[in-house]
Order: sequence, then structure tokens, then C-alpha cells
Amino acid sequence: MCGIFGIFNHSEAANITYLGLHALQHRGQESAGIICSDSSGFYSHKEMGLVSDIFNEEVLKGLKGNRAIGHVRYSTAGASYVQNAQPFAVEYAKGRLAIAHNGNLTNAKVIRDELQNFGSIFQSTMDTEVIVHLIALSHENSTIERVISTLHRVEGSYSLLILTDKEIIAARDPYGFRPLVIGKIGDSFVISSETCAFDLVQAEYIREIAPGEVLHITQDRIKSYMPFKKVKPKHCVFEYIYFARPDSYMFGRTVYTVRKALGRELAKETHVDADIVIPIPDSGAGAAIGYAQETGLPFELGLIRNHYVGRTFIEPRDSIRHFGVKLKLNAVHDTVKDKRIIVVDDSIVRSTTGSKIVKMLQQQGAKEVHFRVSSPPTAFPCFYGIDTPSRSQLIASSHSTDEINTFMGSDTLGYLSIDGIKKAIGDKEDEFDYDFCDACFSGSYPSKFPLGMGLEQMELFQKK
Amino acid sequence: MCGIFGIFNHSEAANITYLGLHALQHRGQESAGIICSDSSGFYSHKEMGLVSDIFNEEVLKGLKGNRAIGHVRYSTAGASYVQNAQPFAVEYAKGRLAIAHNGNLTNAKVIRDELQNFGSIFQSTMDTEVIVHLIALSHENSTIERVISTLHRVEGSYSLLILTDKEIIAARDPYGFRPLVIGKIGDSFVISSETCAFDLVQAEYIREIAPGEVLHITQDRIKSYMPFKKVKPKHCVFEYIYFARPDSYMFGRTVYTVRKALGRELAKETHVDADIVIPIPDSGAGAAIGYAQETGLPFELGLIRNHYVGRTFIEPRDSIRHFGVKLKLNAVHDTVKDKRIIVVDDSIVRSTTGSKIVKMLQQQGAKEVHFRVSSPPTAFPCFYGIDTPSRSQLIASSHSTDEINTFMGSDTLGYLSIDGIKKAIGDKEDEFDYDFCDACFSGSYPSKFPLGMGLEQMELFQKK
Amino acid sequence: MCGIFGIFNHSEAANITYLGLHALQHRGQESAGIICSDSSGFYSHKEMGLVSDIFNEEVLKGLKGNRAIGHVRYSTAGASYVQNAQPFAVEYAKGRLAIAHNGNLTNAKVIRDELQNFGSIFQSTMDTEVIVHLIALSHENSTIERVISTLHRVEGSYSLLILTDKEIIAARDPYGFRPLVIGKIGDSFVISSETCAFDLVQAEYIREIAPGEVLHITQDRIKSYMPFKKVKPKHCVFEYIYFARPDSYMFGRTVYTVRKALGRELAKETHVDADIVIPIPDSGAGAAIGYAQETGLPFELGLIRNHYVGRTFIEPRDSIRHFGVKLKLNAVHDTVKDKRIIVVDDSIVRSTTGSKIVKMLQQQGAKEVHFRVSSPPTAFPCFYGIDTPSRSQLIASSHSTDEINTFMGSDTLGYLSIDGIKKAIGDKEDEFDYDFCDACFSGSYPSKFPLGMGLEQMELFQKK
Amino acid sequence: MCGIFGIFNHSEAANITYLGLHALQHRGQESAGIICSDSSGFYSHKEMGLVSDIFNEEVLKGLKGNRAIGHVRYSTAGASYVQNAQPFAVEYAKGRLAIAHNGNLTNAKVIRDELQNFGSIFQSTMDTEVIVHLIALSHENSTIERVISTLHRVEGSYSLLILTDKEIIAARDPYGFRPLVIGKIGDSFVISSETCAFDLVQAEYIREIAPGEVLHITQDRIKSYMPFKKVKPKHCVFEYIYFARPDSYMFGRTVYTVRKALGRELAKETHVDADIVIPIPDSGAGAAIGYAQETGLPFELGLIRNHYVGRTFIEPRDSIRHFGVKLKLNAVHDTVKDKRIIVVDDSIVRSTTGSKIVKMLQQQGAKEVHFRVSSPPTAFPCFYGIDTPSRSQLIASSHSTDEINTFMGSDTLGYLSIDGIKKAIGDKEDEFDYDFCDACFSGSYPSKFPLGMGLEQMELFQKK
Repeated sequence: MCGIFGIFNHSEAANITYLGLHALQHRGQESAGIICSDSSGFYSHKEMGLVSDIFNEEVLKGLKGNRAIGHVRYSTAGASYVQNAQPFAVEYAKGRLAIAHNGNLTNAKVIRDELQNFGSIFQSTMDTEVIVHLIALSHENSTIERVISTLHRVEGSYSLLILTDKEIIAARDPYGFRPLVIGKIGDSFVISSETCAFDLVQAEYIREIAPGEVLHITQDRIKSYMPFKKVKPKHCVFEYIYFARPDSYMFGRTVYTVRKALGRELAKETHVDADIVIPIPDSGAGAAIGYAQETGLPFELGLIRNHYVGRTFIEPRDSIRHFGVKLKLNAVHDTVKDKRIIVVDDSIVRSTTGSKIVKMLQQQGAKEVHFRVSSPPTAFPCFYGIDTPSRSQLIASSHSTDEINTFMGSDTLGYLSIDGIKKAIGDKEDEFDYDFCDACFSGSYPSKFPLGMGLEQMELFQKK
Repeated sequence: MCGIFGIFNHSEAANITYLGLHALQHRGQESAGIICSDSSGFYSHKEMGLVSDIFNEEVLKGLKGNRAIGHVRYSTAGASYVQNAQPFAVEYAKGRLAIAHNGNLTNAKVIRDELQNFGSIFQSTMDTEVIVHLIALSHENSTIERVISTLHRVEGSYSLLILTDKEIIAARDPYGFRPLVIGKIGDSFVISSETCAFDLVQAEYIREIAPGEVLHITQDRIKSYMPFKKVKPKHCVFEYIYFARPDSYMFGRTVYTVRKALGRELAKETHVDADIVIPIPDSGAGAAIGYAQETGLPFELGLIRNHYVGRTFIEPRDSIRHFGVKLKLNAVHDTVKDKRIIVVDDSIVRSTTGSKIVKMLQQQGAKEVHFRVSSPPTAFPCFYGIDTPSRSQLIASSHSTDEINTFMGSDTLGYLSIDGIKKAIGDKEDEFDYDFCDACFSGSYPSKFPLGMGLEQMELFQKK
Repeated sequence: MCGIFGIFNHSEAANITYLGLHALQHRGQESAGIICSDSSGFYSHKEMGLVSDIFNEEVLKGLKGNRAIGHVRYSTAGASYVQNAQPFAVEYAKGRLAIAHNGNLTNAKVIRDELQNFGSIFQSTMDTEVIVHLIALSHENSTIERVISTLHRVEGSYSLLILTDKEIIAARDPYGFRPLVIGKIGDSFVISSETCAFDLVQAEYIREIAPGEVLHITQDRIKSYMPFKKVKPKHCVFEYIYFARPDSYMFGRTVYTVRKALGRELAKETHVDADIVIPIPDSGAGAAIGYAQETGLPFELGLIRNHYVGRTFIEPRDSIRHFGVKLKLNAVHDTVKDKRIIVVDDSIVRSTTGSKIVKMLQQQGAKEVHFRVSSPPTAFPCFYGIDTPSRSQLIASSHSTDEINTFMGSDTLGYLSIDGIKKAIGDKEDEFDYDFCDACFSGSYPSKFPLGMGLEQMELFQKK
Repeated sequence: MCGIFGIFNHSEAANITYLGLHALQHRGQESAGIICSDSSGFYSHKEMGLVSDIFNEEVLKGLKGNRAIGHVRYSTAGASYVQNAQPFAVEYAKGRLAIAHNGNLTNAKVIRDELQNFGSIFQSTMDTEVIVHLIALSHENSTIERVISTLHRVEGSYSLLILTDKEIIAARDPYGFRPLVIGKIGDSFVISSETCAFDLVQAEYIREIAPGEVLHITQDRIKSYMPFKKVKPKHCVFEYIYFARPDSYMFGRTVYTVRKALGRELAKETHVDADIVIPIPDSGAGAAIGYAQETGLPFELGLIRNHYVGRTFIEPRDSIRHFGVKLKLNAVHDTVKDKRIIVVDDSIVRSTTGSKIVKMLQQQGAKEVHFRVSSPPTAFPCFYGIDTPSRSQLIASSHSTDEINTFMGSDTLGYLSIDGIKKAIGDKEDEFDYDFCDACFSGSYPSKFPLGMGLEQMELFQKK
């Protein structure tokens, strides 16, 4: 997963982008980068690590120009190289071009093979690189035309920022899988994955960039194109459930409010008699509050999170029970002792962490542990940018809820239904369509796969 | 403020101490150190920074021996040198000795002057260094006797660990200002500032080290001394209010439970009509939950914390409103909009942060902002180890609650009373004395100051 | 300038390459990299900095496989990015390919423009990148054929190593501008810019790779191709004069021996009466020894070099005379006092350093300072890989020897003539042609420039 | 071994000291430090590593004040901690004091034991710490009196700089073992271990600080004390032979000139018929030049040094012959082939390196290798600051020259005699006493050992 941020026409473009990336840090902690542009060229800095470690005053001073795009990247196993850090800049016949991409192209491999057959060389393992090749190969006259022609070729999810010597182009795929918003600071346009970045840099929120919209920002004007056939939007519901920051306003709602609504629906569907509701911090907090409000049970902080967790920890030889979880979480003994507990998390992927938490609560004397999940069983891989593991590692793809409950050792296990999600998200005054992608729960993928490929082939295909 | 951890007779003494310090990281983020000992000497590693950055497998491998003590230190303005990192090790006539100290000696300056007049040299600005000098100058025959004789000379607060070539000595001042607990891992004794470290390393909690107790741990036996005149204990109430981790069991109670009780009393004393209760994360969470439970108002996460905040951030030239606070906190717009809000924090020191948060909530549309503090006005400096600023910077030492409310811009401002603290802490089945130091609120300091000094002199005196 | 090293079929390919690069460190201190290959892929590590800082045991352990190529790169102003570090690896239709290049392509810009016009994108500013594009675009069937076809397209200088999943290809341009030698360690072939790397890794020297030769090393066999029209070789004479390590055997001679012969010729051509001969360390040492031997004058170390010079030094406000030179060199007072001194260096580029050294010697009491240079005036830029500045900065391109002598403040200034070089190099038992490029002195460039471009255009052209 | 530098009354005290330490870097590469002083206190920075890595503009900016002392420290096995880095600063009854020390106190252990028995604590393993304790314990009224009284207590070698809030004191032991010189920059006094630092910072050399002299520099005046009983000076002859920089003027002579004279004497004493003379670079260069001049044989660079050698290198599994030496040195094949070679070094300590060099020359085809050493066999440990190993590791303490020759594999081995040293050093127009310590060769130690201890006890005693 990734976050992107851009700004046009601001005397402190790099500084603002750096703060924007800081606000988007939750979308990617592997690497970060900024590319700025002025009349004499590009200025770039990208590294592995966190925004606050990578950029300092000296580095920012070197990033000149009043236009910038930035990117934070999530750590996905095995492809963690600085070559894969973005923004990705190249020189081609028409000049310099840099790109920052959030999303995942489902036909990247097909296009890559085709390009390579015509003699193209690739220097990264990123799907994003094919976009740049296609732009360079396009015979259209202007950058905006080349970009639009390129986007007609690619499938999957993309929220994009493209920087050249004189413009920024922002684009979002027709389904609008990933978020992208536009705002203003004085006369400067800013574009961001989430509105929480606008709050930090004091930008005024204007609107979402629409699914399928291509925005062309130049010194003179901002112009909107809708070049694609219109389809029913398919926003990623997992952004609501887990990924986005609770204070962001996304797809027409505030994320925290949606999470509480999911928790309320979860309570309606799965409640059993209990004494307290506790979240798995911090991801389960919103849903747990909703659950507690719906049921009237006390909301308690029964698990405390240690925020100082670094990269790696050395475990003693006499291995510590649930070591990995214990470094991050600890139970509050007298809060959980002798209690019947509803413990709420946003999702279960492999179930190993949840299982350790159940045991931790039981060891601290919990009488009953009822595990509740504010989303349906995650049974299908995501091909649109969420870094889920392959199906073989998704416990829900091969096990029933009962089996998972047995494995986890909880007294009961309850998931929210897809229908519950719909109710939760629809629960809003001004009517709102359920325009969401829930393929990770339903297996019903909105976009077609290339060449009539099946799910197994796609999984094989996306491995990096 | 600081945290200490020690272990005796364990084949992985350094590894366990490192994990213990990780669990105590909230007690000090400036520097960390571990000193181990085996029959051939001491092995030491200390640096500025966080535990997880300072220690790695290679460093830990070099820390040999089956005894260790460790220390994390809080960043106090101006005295942030690696020379002040602990444990502090020296060689003296009777051999090697290392010390780790949590607390603050009120007569350190007096003793230091005296020692210097007799020719002693000091290499750090730490009060702890006088303890080591006194031990070295003692004519007693054994380490334990020298330590006890030394502790008769010093006043103030100390929870101490002393390591020599063959023993560990743990000691706590007669008032028991700072916490100190002992536990067991198999045959190995472990000592820690807080029980949360025991949970991580799977140690079994035995008991508190009593105020005024000196514990002598050798290969053969563990022996307890109570060498001081007994006084009524004066545990630091601020450990409950703010400093300790919520999951620790301290002074006979779980910290989280006390915080909720403080929130309940706060509601009883100061409640006004409102729509929601929100905490200032993470410090106000426990009290806010108690407040919400007492009043029946919904508990909401109206402020979201960014956990990626690093050392320094570059602010744009066109300064951002409330920049420092915004890097850490953001309001959830549709949760606070048009709401009458009770916002709860644990304490107000300078009031600048609180004031910015009030404005942030108002800008997001809050109808009313009622600021509630789960402790009384902090009007007096602490001489026992909490890093409060001088009185001139404590807003409550020179301003009334009304004046502070006006400054903060809140609709109302309410503090918990000292009496409320007593009720909150006393609210327990098995009766418990109010054996707490609340000098930072009441100005009534339990231990006498040296030489009949007054408060102003003491303040001057403690500056480093 | 750069150095390259490769090894095929050795169980410790990365370790050997790392040592080889260490021995070639004088050829480039900006960045270093190694790429290894086994049946499952490439393993790469490259960074800015010195070989000994970049590689450690852990990094080397990660570089698996029994084939490797490595590269050290010289710091050229303004193009010092990690993107320009080599080896340069890409994926194309026929698989993975990595390249390490020493030299400079004179028609890189022409080909780059052409490739970009056909849609290619470039990620570095290196001329080397065009080679990879051409290979990828070639329709030939095998790697070796694609490489040979590509090399027919490029002009200028190259000593190349190319690594794929199953082979190493070594190639040298038809003029043989840059050195390249092949040797053996047991059954493993090693290839290196200079023989000094063979001495360190205990490889047995076999022979030079011939000008225009392409060597194809596979598991089964090593095969030599001579695909280009034969031309008279044009080895870089500056490798002898300055660049190569004195202990290397290159172009049929030992570098140190050639340097002494240059010094002898220099004495024959330019000698004046004097007391001592001193070198500018370390570059002038060989020629100074030859000069002293020819004249019978004492060879003395009149200038001492400080070998601890790092990146940058802070100069005091009251600027120190000749600060930059003084950080590196100091005169030995009683050796130079009252002496008539012959001071010998290998070349004069901008003359600023030489000028400061003359003044330093005079301030220490030298009676006469006669500056002698073991090469002719450097009046023309090099387009074959030596990092000379543009002509406007080459003092000899616009000033006579007399003018330079006046500027430097020396009593006399003498250069070796081109004819002297010929005599020095020809001074060998088994007759040896003068097959050298001396364009930097003579302006007579052996290879044609693209499109009939003139010298000025070429200069403009090569700027990065 | 160490180097010290100080400056009084200069607006850029830290910058000048930093450059001075850079020029003295050869005297110690383990750690470096600077302490400055102005009216409000001390400013200190010290770290492990090289001067150019430790200090940058930001660090130097923080080192305020117009007085400074600095120190570079040599890496001695096993005692390489930052606690042992100097200058060493403490606070005592009379204020702050910092010390930088070059030398070694022979009675440090005796005094340390005594001080510890009176209750002193030690935080480093440095002998220097006892000086500070003694100063602090002194009942004299002024710093200068306390320092002089302290220096009456210590024995051994010291060139010292002491900094307080208002003065600098420079002192040299009565024998003058280690060098110390004073100079001027405008109105500012500078003090340095060697004159080469004066050359860099443009200071004017005034004179040596005399053996036994104590110089007191204050704002008003500079005053010289000669408080000790006069003894015949015993300058360290090893400074001439190996340690000092060739361009320094020391003990009345230029080091390079002395080294050449040693080489001449060596030739007179030990010459055999040969073809060329080569130095082991860089330490043997001066003597080899003298040897060549005396004999008329050609001086050649038969061994080339790689100056990029870093901390550690990974050796391949199939161990490379003479790996450690090869990383640093390589023979020039056609210079040494079929030659009878005189190879000159300054000293032989363990003989392992020399032995490898002999073999390297033989493998490159040398016909004969005659090893010549410009000093006598090093058979005794140094207690005055040179970091020689213990006697058991000094090959000359247990083996005859014949035996060593056999071990090294050289054809002949020749050392300079003590008498030869005397002749070399005495070879000067204005007569000069042989006031040198040659205990490492002769075993005749100028200063008495404490308590009538013997050599074995002293060796045991000095181990750290």
C-alpha cells in the first residue's frame, strides 16, 4: 500500500510535501521520496525508512522548485529495494517525467512482457514502470494526451501523480479503488491520498478526484478530463475497515464514523452476553466503541500497546510465550480478570496474532473471550493494492468460522457480514450507494482479469 | 524520570534486561544502558537513544555474565549528555561497582560540595554520582554495609540497583516515592520499576520492595534489611495520574483502574451538560473512560494521534497554526462538529498544548469545549524525580483556574480536587491508606529540605 | 574513471570481487557495487562510498552465486548519484543482464536521442545505459550475438563486463583505450582493469584482453571473438602517466618502470642545474626517481603527505594560505631550505595546486624551484574516460609554458615532450610500437566524432 | 601514543584546534576530542574515530570560547572505550578542569591504589585520571600551584595541557620524554606535540617547552616555572625512528633528516653488495633514502602501498597467502625480479609483517633479500608512552639476530647499533648531546620504577 501527495505552485513545495507525507505515513513505512521541479530540472530524494528520518532541513533545502510530488511505500515482503522507492523519474524523448502511484495494475505483467518483447528494459520490479514506458512510447503530442492514452491500456487500481517540467497530472482509475482528493492552499493546488494531510498543512478540502477523472494542472489553469467509459465505482471497503486514518474524510464519509457503524452492525449481528468490550489497539478501537455503544456494555482498554516497538528484537533462548505480540501488547490484569470479554479487531488475516491475544487474555484470568471482527472473513487476495497474503495463508479461505474459533481458542468468534457492511455504510442521512469493492470477502472482483485468467493464475502472476 | 531493571543469576541476563528496559521505555527515552557482570569483570553498553536502536544482537552478545542492571533515562532539558547515561560504573578500592537510579536526591548539591571540598572530582552532573562517592568513602567492611551507611546520608527519592562483582543490591527510600518491584524467573530474581516489564519477560511478580527496604541478593541467598526509621509512605501520585504504564500494578493497585477512578471523581466534581467525552490521546484515555462511564455520555475518539512523530520537523515559512500539536494530533471533524465536548487530559503543566487543542476542536466546529483535568492544578515543582518545569513556568502557580480557562479559550475548565484523588484511590475493597505524595499540587513536601532551605532556594538548587 | 572486476565459476565470487575492487579503489572512489548471479537470480549491492565502507561480512554473505562482476566509480562533478552507480542491472525480454563499464562512449548522446525518439526511457545519466537498451532491442538470438551487434553501434572507449544468468562477457573497444586483463584462480577465470587486483587475490595473469576482443565465458568453455575491423591500438597514455597503480603490468609494461623512464626523458629534455629532486607525493614519485637517477641528483622527500585527509574541512575565517594544499602536503623545512629544487609531478591540469606548492617551498626557504612535469601540457579534453575538465579550465589550452611558469611563480617550468613519451615507452628490449592515444596532449583524437562534430560541440555534448 | 594541541586567546579556538589535531592524526587514530572554554563553561566533543569524521561544521560551531585543548589517542588493544577518550574534564571544589595528556605515568597504579584506599572512585582506566584526583586533593591555593604539587607526585612521561575557566597550563616531565612545542598566531599562544601542526595553522614556532618546564598562560601574561630538580633529558629516540611526522622539527632536529642519517649509519654498519634499495612504505622511506645515498645504490619503490585500507577485511575461505600484508602492500614485479634487494624498515617488533614482505619479494623473483632496520633490536617494553607489546611478544627479547633472520627467511638481516643511533643524531654542526631514552633497545630505563619494582612487575603493572 502507498500514499501520495503533490502540490503545484507553492514557494515551499518540498516542505509542504514532506509534511503531507508525514500525515500519510500510516499508508507506507518502507520508503519515502519527494521529487521537485523548477525550470532547470528535477530535484529528488528517496530512501528506505520513515519520512521523519529521511528528510531533514539540509535535504529539503536541496529540493528546489514550486512543484513537487511525494510517495510513501508499504513494506511488502521480498521486494524491499530502494530501486522500488517512488516517485520514479525518467528521461524520455519529450523530457523528464516523475510518477507516484498508489494501487496495483492487474495487467502489468502482460504489458511488461509485451514491452520487453519490443526491446524495453526494466530496472525495477514495480508495475508502475510500465506506465512510464507506455507514456514514452505514445505518439500523442502532449503529455496529457500521452497519459490518457496510456491509462486506456492499463487495468487495475491507480491513484496517480505525474510531474513534468511544467505540469502535474493527477489521475484515478475508473473504479476509484484508491482514494484521491484535491484541495487548496491559497493559490496552490494540493492533491493527497487522504484529507488528514490537508488538515496538517492547512489546505482547504475541495473535493474527491472522481473515479476515472484525469486532472491536468498547469501554470495557467486546472482542467478536468473524464476520458473513460463510466462504470459503477468500486471504492476499496478495506480503506474504511482498516487502512485509512480515522480522521480522514473519504468516499463521502469520515472513516472513524464508518468504523463505529461497522462496530454497531457487528453487535447487532453477533452479540452474546458479556461484561466488557475491549479493542485490539489501535486498529479495533473505532469498531469496539461502536459495539459498546450499541450494546451499552462498558468500553475498556484491556490491552495496552507499547508504541516504542522498533525493527527487530532479540528473543531469549528460552523462548517467551507469544513473544511477538507481547512486545506490542499487554493485558491489564484487573480489567480482564473474571470478565466475559468482547474483544474487537478490524479483520483476521492469518489468525496467529488473534490467537495469541486470546491466550494472553485467558492467562490474565478472563472468564470468557468472544472475538469479534468488524469485517467478513478475508478469504480472497486483493489485486488492487492491499498487501494481503496469498490465499493459502488466508485462514478464512480454507477454514470455517468454527474451525478458526477452535484454532484461536476463543469462546465464540463472530464476523460482520457483507450485508452488515452495506448497512453500516448506508447508514447516512443523504442516501449513498454501496459503491464498494469487497472482493477480499466476496471473491467478486470488479475488473476483469487479463486474458481470461483465473484466480490461481492471477495469484501466481502478482508475486514479486 | 527513569526506569530501572535488574536480574541476578540468569544465563541470559543481558537479553532479559534489554527486554525489561523495552517495557520500561515510557519512563525515559533519552538514553539507555546495561551493565553485566561475570567473574572476570563488567561489560557495559550505554548510548543516547531508544532501547531498540541502541541494542542489537552483536551488542547483546558482548554483554556477558549472569547478572545485569539496566536503566532508561528521561530527557531533561540541558543535561542530555552521554556522560549522564546510566548505569554508572566506577572502580574504587574495594572493586567495581555500577549503579542505576530512579529518583532525585534533595541534598545532592550539599553533599557534592562537601565531597569536592575534601578533594573529590565529579565527571557527570548527576546526583547519583554522590552515592558512589559516599560508598567509596565509607569505612564499612562489606558492600551492603557501605550502601546502607551511604543511604543514611542522602535525602530525597531513590529506587536503586547496585551491581558489584558478586551481588546486586536493590534499595528504595523510606518514603517509597518511586516504585520498585521484585519477581522471579525460575531461580532468578528480577527487579523492575514496574510490573509491565515482568509481563513481557514472563517473570512472576512477588511483591513491592518496601519503602525503606534494602535487598541484598547474592549467589547463596536474598536478604532484606529495613535500616531506616519507619515513616508514613509517600508514593508519588503522579505515577498513577500520568507516568506509569496503565497495565502496571503499582502501590497496591492497577494504574488503569486508578485512572478510571480519577475520571469518575472528576465527573462527580466538575460535570456540565455535554454530548460526548473525548480523551487527549494517549494520556487522557483512562480518565476519559471513567468520566464517560460515570456520566453515561458516549466516549469518542475525537482526536487522532500520529504515532510516527520523530525528533524534529521543519515548519514552512508561513507558519502553520498549532504546528507542534498538529504533527501529533488531529480532530475528527464529524465527531466534534456541533457537539458540546468534554475533553479530558491527565494534567496541565504550561497550558500551551491544551490551549491549541481547544482551538483545534473549535475550528472543527465544536459547539462547546469543556476541558477537564484528572488531577489538581500543578502549582509546585517536584524534587523527587518528576521532570516538572520551574514554578515560573507552571501556569497554575501564578494563575487561577478562571484565568487559565480564559487563556485556553475553553468554555469551562475543571480540575479534580486533592480530595477527589483521595476518594479515587481509596475506592478499593481492602482499605488502603492515602500514603501519597501530592506536593506538586499541595506544596506540602514530605521530606525536609536540607539546611532549612525554602522552596525558592531548592528550585535554584536543583537546576542543572 | 572507473575500475571493473569479474569472476566466473568460483564458490566465493563475491568475496573475491570485493577484494579485487579494493585493489582497484584508486580507479574510483565515488561508488562501488557488486552483482552476483546464481541459478535463481541476481544479488546486488551498490552504494556511494569506498569499498571497505560499503561491504561487510553480512552484505557479502547476501551476495550469492559463483559468478560476479564489480565496479568502482570515480567522482565526476555533478553526476554523483547512486542511480549512476554500477554494475547496472535490468530485466529485458531475454532475462536479466548486468553491466560494468570503464570508458566513455562518444556517440552515447546521439544513440540516446534516437532511442528516446523510439520510446525508450532512461533512468540514469550514464552513457552505459545505451548499451543495455541496444542489447534489449537487438533481434539476434543469443546474448553474445546481441552484445557484438550492439558494440558495432557504439563508438569511443569501453572495457566491459556483462553478466547474465549463465555467462560473463568481457569486451574491449577496438582501440583498447582502457586496460583489461584476464587471469585464473584454479578453474575460475578472473577479469580485471589492472593486474594489481590479481596479485591480491592470488590469480595467475594470463594475458591482456586484446583491443577489439569479445570474450565469452560460459560453464563449458571460454571463447574469443574478434568481430571488429582491426585498427592500430590507441592505449591511453595517461594510464601510464598518472592513473594506473605503479605495480600493475599494463599494455606490455610495468607502470612504475614506465614512470621512471618518463622521468629520465624529462631530465634529458629539461634539466637545469640544481641540488635535489623531490616528487609531489604520491603521483610524482616514479618520475622523480627516474629524474634523480638520470641526473645523479639526490632524490629527497621534501614534501610530506597527510594520508588522513577526509571529505571536507572547515577553514578558519582568517583564511589560511594555501589551505587546501596544506591539509594534504607540508614541506620539510631543512630539506628544502637554501636548495635549488627540481620538483616533479606527473601533469598540470589547472595549475592551482602546483602554484601553491611552489609558494610553500619558497616560503620554507628554497633558493630556486624548478617545476618539472613528466607529460606534455594537457591542452585538450579526453573523451575516452579520463575526467579532465573542459578546455577552458585546462591552463595549457590557452597559455604558453612561459605564461604558466609566471603564474606558478616557479623559476623554470619544463614539460616532457610527446616525443619524449615515445622514447620513454619505446625504451624496452623487445620492440614495442607506440600504440598510444595522446589526444589530451596532441589534440589528435583517434576515433571520429559522430556526425562530423567539432571539438567544441563534443565538449558541450559530453557535459553531464 | 597520543597527540595534544591547545590554543589560548583566539576567536576561532575550536577550529584551529581541530586543524591542529588533523595535523597530529598520525599520533593517534582511536579517538579525538576538543574541549573549549569561555566565561560560562566548558564545551566538549569527543568520540571514537578520526578527526575528520568526528568534527563537522555544526559540532565546531557548538564549541564556543577562545581557549581550547584537544587530543588524539592511539588505539591500544583492549582499552578502546570512549570513556578513555581525552580531553578528560571534571568538576571539583575549585571549578572545572580539563586535561589532555601524552605519555604514561609509571607510578599511576601505586597512586591509584592509594587514592582508592582513601575513597576515590575512578571512571576510566587511564593513568591520566590520577593527575586530576591529585589536583583536586591538593591544598594549594591556585591551580598552577596545585598542578605543580601534583606533578611532583607522578613519575614517568607526560606532555600535558590543562584547561580551566581562565587559564591553560602546559607541562612536560623533567626528562622531556615526549615532545611539546609552543608557537604563536598573532597574539594567541598555541601549543602542540609537533611543529607540523604549526605549519598547517600558520603558527610561528617559538621554542620547545623545556623538559621539566611548567608554562602558565593567562589573559595577562605567560609565565614559565622550572619546579623540578634538573636531570639530563631523555627524549624518546623512537619519535625520531618511527613515530613523529618527517616534516616536524623536534628535539633540535628535523625528523626526516635524522631518519636519513640513521639510514646512512645503517649502511655504514651493515651494507652488503646489492642492486637496489627499497623502503617498506611509508615508515622506512627516510632511512632507505639515506641508505641509498650512502651506498650509491638506486633507491626504488619496489613495494606499493594501498592507502584505502579500512578497518576490517573479509578473507576468502581459501586463505590468501600473507593476506593482511597484501591488503596494504604489493611488490612491483619487474623492479624486484632478479635483483639483490636491500629492503629497509624503521624497526622490527613481532617480525610477522617483515617475514611476509620477504616472502612476497622472493615470490616476485628477488634474487636476494637483505632486510635492514634503522634501529637496534626492540627487546624491551616502553613504559613512557610508546605502545610496544609485552616482552614475550617482542621477538628480539628472546631471539638472536640470526634466529630472526632465519625466521624471516631473508638472506641477511641487519640492525643499526645504539652507537650508530648516537652517531646519526650527533651528526650535526652545532654540537648536540645524546640526550635520548633508548630503553626499548638497551633496557636501561632512565626513571626509577616505583617501590624498587623489577621489569617483570612493571610489565604486569602496566597492563590494562
